[in-house]
Amino acid sequence: MTMSNQGGGRRRPPTIHDVAREAGVSRGTVSRVLNGGHYVSPAAQEAVNAAIRKTGYVVNRHARSLITGRSDSVGFLLTEPQEKFFEDPNFNVLLRGCTQALAAHDIPLLLMIAGTEDERRRISRYITAGHVDGVLLVSSHSGDPVAAELRDAGVPLVACGKPIGQASKVSYVAADDRDGARDMVRHLLSLGRRRIGMITGPLDTPGGVERLAGYREVLGESGVEVDERLIVTGDYSRAGGEAGAAELLSRVPGLDALFVASDLMAQGALSALQRAGRRVPEDVAVGGFDDSPAATATSPALTTIRQPWDRISAEMVRVLLAQIGGEDPSAVILPTELVKRESA
Amino acid sequence: MTMSNQGGGRRRPPTIHDVAREAGVSRGTVSRVLNGGHYVSPAAQEAVNAAIRKTGYVVNRHARSLITGRSDSVGFLLTEPQEKFFEDPNFNVLLRGCTQALAAHDIPLLLMIAGTEDERRRISRYITAGHVDGVLLVSSHSGDPVAAELRDAGVPLVACGKPIGQASKVSYVAADDRDGARDMVRHLLSLGRRRIGMITGPLDTPGGVERLAGYREVLGESGVEVDERLIVTGDYSRAGGEAGAAELLSRVPGLDALFVASDLMAQGALSALQRAGRRVPEDVAVGGFDDSPAATATSPALTTIRQPWDRISAEMVRVLLAQIGGEDPSAVILPTELVKRESA
Repeated sequence: MTMSNQGGGRRRPPTIHDVAREAGVSRGTVSRVLNGGHYVSPAAQEAVNAAIRKTGYVVNRHARSLITGRSDSVGFLLTEPQEKFFEDPNFNVLLRGCTQALAAHDIPLLLMIAGTEDERRRISRYITAGHVDGVLLVSSHSGDPVAAELRDAGVPLVACGKPIGQASKVSYVAADDRDGARDMVRHLLSLGRRRIGMITGPLDTPGGVERLAGYREVLGESGVEVDERLIVTGDYSRAGGEAGAAELLSRVPGLDALFVASDLMAQGALSALQRAGRRVPEDVAVGGFDDSPAATATSPALTTIRQPWDRISAEMVRVLLAQIGGEDPSAVILPTELVKRESA
Repeated sequence: MTMSNQGGGRRRPPTIHDVAREAGVSRGTVSRVLNGGHYVSPAAQEAVNAAIRKTGYVVNRHARSLITGRSDSVGFLLTEPQEKFFEDPNFNVLLRGCTQALAAHDIPLLLMIAGTEDERRRISRYITAGHVDGVLLVSSHSGDPVAAELRDAGVPLVACGKPIGQASKVSYVAADDRDGARDMVRHLLSLGRRRIGMITGPLDTPGGVERLAGYREVLGESGVEVDERLIVTGDYSRAGGEAGAAELLSRVPGLDALFVASDLMAQGALSALQRAGRRVPEDVAVGGFDDSPAATATSPALTTIRQPWDRISAEMVRVLLAQIGGEDPSAVILPTELVKRESA
């Protein structure tokens, strides 16, 4: 190989091959030096550094990505409208946890919000171009094509919550939604409540499906007939919780408890109950889900089911890095905990 | 050039050079075809596409970035702690505007939050590696090294707000902070108020400095002596506004107006005034700044200075794309507007 012109008449810049030849080592050794010097002898390392100085080689980060196949970064992909990101305090908590877990590995986190089809297309293109090494996927509805698309493109991926219909192929970390819901409904029953309404999450999300399943199971096991009028579907927003509680009150004015599938919706439900002149917990006991900052911002403070956010984010990062390192997908289910406050 | 082995004994994959030779065109023509086909004749385009099929060439996105020098993406870099991002509604508005303006160019936006020195180092590394083509820099304190660092690395950059001390070298888009402050203080004077307190922004931010300058100017011009006890420095947070108002009330119990340098701080100031038994606007007229969603979430609704967020975000994107396209830095100053509601 010579330093001949390859194209338009300019002398080409030195390449990693030039450095390798100058140092008398293989290209792979140069590459290992550039990537931190693991498995390189001190002598080879010094020879490579001298050759870099002599040839004037400048690490081209694109080229380096070509060599390592890594961008040394991870994406935090939210497939929800931007407004949800700001409204729902769970995202703040999860994002902070993931950022901290990645910081221990000196890996930056890139936030990607893709609420529309066009945004998903653009972000998928960016991700599959290799600008991040893997993706933490947050809040995927079952109709969401992103998980399958990224998986098919070979992008390491960990979902927060069990991806409906793809659980066997995509790594995920989830709280035990069904068990948490069972704990809450058992608690409401233990308070003597029998007309327990439920505001579910969206039924194309794992939390939507599983928390409802837990509610049905416990009522069934307790011999309480499930009254379908007592179940409304929510959307994890404050406004959705408010509308859901108002609807339940109009259907069954005598309801004596409410299990709401997220704290943010429970916040809205409390407003609706208050407006309808119901005392909480005296007239209607209210149980939430998440133990997000929303749970303690309400009056009365919410009795809720704690999702172990710190563990969830730490496990998501652990599983993703393992997958980037070549491991197969895996799933982690973490236990929840009943947190008793004032609302039930 | 032959298809000989270059390294470890495997046949190397076809390159853009192979495609060019096969098609009988220059490498530049192949590159233009790969990047959308601008300035390429239909015949050359067809020849290149045929050569790509024949050689089995696969566009390597890293390699493509090498050719174009572009990632076709833009970063939205917030050099503030993550909590600020969720607390201050201005960021939500600005982010949505930038996302929309970039969508018209089919360019995805990556969010980067770098509140600590380590986070800044990691994100700078990511940016200067070429994973984004340019950066929209939000909320840079003057001590913030990021703007200078990115500029020195040749990264196209547009700041939101005038970067203190670097205004001549870094592009920025800003509302006319001083003029907006002048309008508000004139308005408070026109209501007959004379003991006008001010809660400023941080004095290492342009909004902190300029809004205070406008306050001083108008009082001076009106022959009202500036009482330094009436000025406290805030931090653009709700809690900071609450503490600032409480401090001012203890210093000058008879103050009859407050100019607060952000709506979020004004929200906190209203709480402090209410707790101190002051009626707004009867006892104390309160003026905010931003016209963010916070302004209409308060009771009474805030009289404030509207920052033209839609235009700010659109101009930030326009200036950044121009700079990515090779233009020199430029500055855009946009007018503000007094919005009268109930608080003053």
